[in-house]
Amino acid sequence: MNLLKGKTAAAYVDTGHWSKAALEEARKYCDVNVLEGADSSKWAVTGNEAYLHYVDNETIGGFEFHSIPESHGLDLVCDMSSNLLSRPFDVSKFALVYACAQKNLGPVGNTIVIVRSDLIGDEMPITPSMCNYSIFRGKQSMYNTPVTYSWYLSGLICEWVKEEGGLLEMDRRAKHRANKLYDFIDASDYYTSPVEIQFRSRMNIPFTLKNTDKNQLFLDESAAIGLINLKGHRSVGGMRASMYNAMPDAGADALIAFMQAFQDQQS
Amino acid sequence: MNLLKGKTAAAYVDTGHWSKAALEEARKYCDVNVLEGADSSKWAVTGNEAYLHYVDNETIGGFEFHSIPESHGLDLVCDMSSNLLSRPFDVSKFALVYACAQKNLGPVGNTIVIVRSDLIGDEMPITPSMCNYSIFRGKQSMYNTPVTYSWYLSGLICEWVKEEGGLLEMDRRAKHRANKLYDFIDASDYYTSPVEIQFRSRMNIPFTLKNTDKNQLFLDESAAIGLINLKGHRSVGGMRASMYNAMPDAGADALIAFMQAFQDQQS
Repeated sequence: MNLLKGKTAAAYVDTGHWSKAALEEARKYCDVNVLEGADSSKWAVTGNEAYLHYVDNETIGGFEFHSIPESHGLDLVCDMSSNLLSRPFDVSKFALVYACAQKNLGPVGNTIVIVRSDLIGDEMPITPSMCNYSIFRGKQSMYNTPVTYSWYLSGLICEWVKEEGGLLEMDRRAKHRANKLYDFIDASDYYTSPVEIQFRSRMNIPFTLKNTDKNQLFLDESAAIGLINLKGHRSVGGMRASMYNAMPDAGADALIAFMQAFQDQQS
Repeated sequence: MNLLKGKTAAAYVDTGHWSKAALEEARKYCDVNVLEGADSSKWAVTGNEAYLHYVDNETIGGFEFHSIPESHGLDLVCDMSSNLLSRPFDVSKFALVYACAQKNLGPVGNTIVIVRSDLIGDEMPITPSMCNYSIFRGKQSMYNTPVTYSWYLSGLICEWVKEEGGLLEMDRRAKHRANKLYDFIDASDYYTSPVEIQFRSRMNIPFTLKNTDKNQLFLDESAAIGLINLKGHRSVGGMRASMYNAMPDAGADALIAFMQAFQDQQS
């Protein structure tokens, strides 16, 4: 509604659950050219699209882009809901970046939009005021009463990230944490990662058990020692470990130790 | 978007700032029949409107309905953002009631919608998912990640209201608190209430000083003793005392004592 600017189509990359949700939503307002697959060199844009939308990290599938994909001359629009503030990125490459807060940025309640100034304006007449970037810029993001407590906590999180060494350090920790787990999974013949190595997420690590009959036992026993929320999304099955900025290395270590013990017990 | 059901018009009562905001928003989606004035017996509906919208309490003007207005056979839709949870009301009289939380219901972050079941469905195709009541009902209000902390605190507020004696008690306190201030203003020749007696708000009490040159002095001196946020909205001028459920009687007493002292000093 904000970005079409009279055009009638937009390009949407489909890499999973959140990609699909975004492109289905867009279909209410324009024709959607669905770009399949993660290899951006193969995306078939027509050039008539108002922008190219993709999701940087798919929480359910455990898929993440590790470099900015080819834009094919289109304005890049990126959903960074689940990995913003987990690594540095060149914001000048984007027309618009958006993210909810409740992964790395603080508690639920905020939505962050970073948008190139020249793209603000000329919204569709049906755009609700609460979705209208002109109005939000004009009112300095306080057209409505903002969720003050969430804003405040996100501010504290940003200060904490700076104190800890900034985004490079967050990225270093995320990779270190995730790679421990991926290395363990790859070395095991009891667990498997379903994600191609070059697109494995630093934030969300799905894995499956060799013996899927043991899924519930795995969940029960892990929960009993405080390793919780490990059940994979029903659309994927298996397990998923989500490890955002707030997760210490010890969390990954504890999970790996449990997985090793479970494997030993079951093998 | 949710309520038009193929109709092309809606009726909107105009009693002030929030009424105007609502009817301007509605004009994006339908023709708006603006109903002027607070006397509902005089509202000229055509009968072709999908619903009749009004704002129960206007925070800026200090206007409040003290009974449910005539609906003229239309479905009643009511914005109770600033007075929900401050008194009992017959919910069966309404097609839809909505409110934000940050007045009587807790901190900012929640929006409450109470809607008659048969009105859910058949939304306009352009309805964003985040505004679509079918989706929110289907997902039990958790289509998105809800603002958990605000939900939790609103729950505590509801428990507190019950413990204190419920909505009848909240209403009794609100009237007692507000009437003290109205009585003082009416007895004074230094302060004036701009609102017709039968529509005076229990929540927001605007008043003006006889000598408007003293507005800033009034604000400075009141703030100095901890009576804050008394400046009226710029569209109305003067002063405004907002007294929601959380305001104790002592708050009204302190304001009245200050106003008396200021009047004595200036007269």
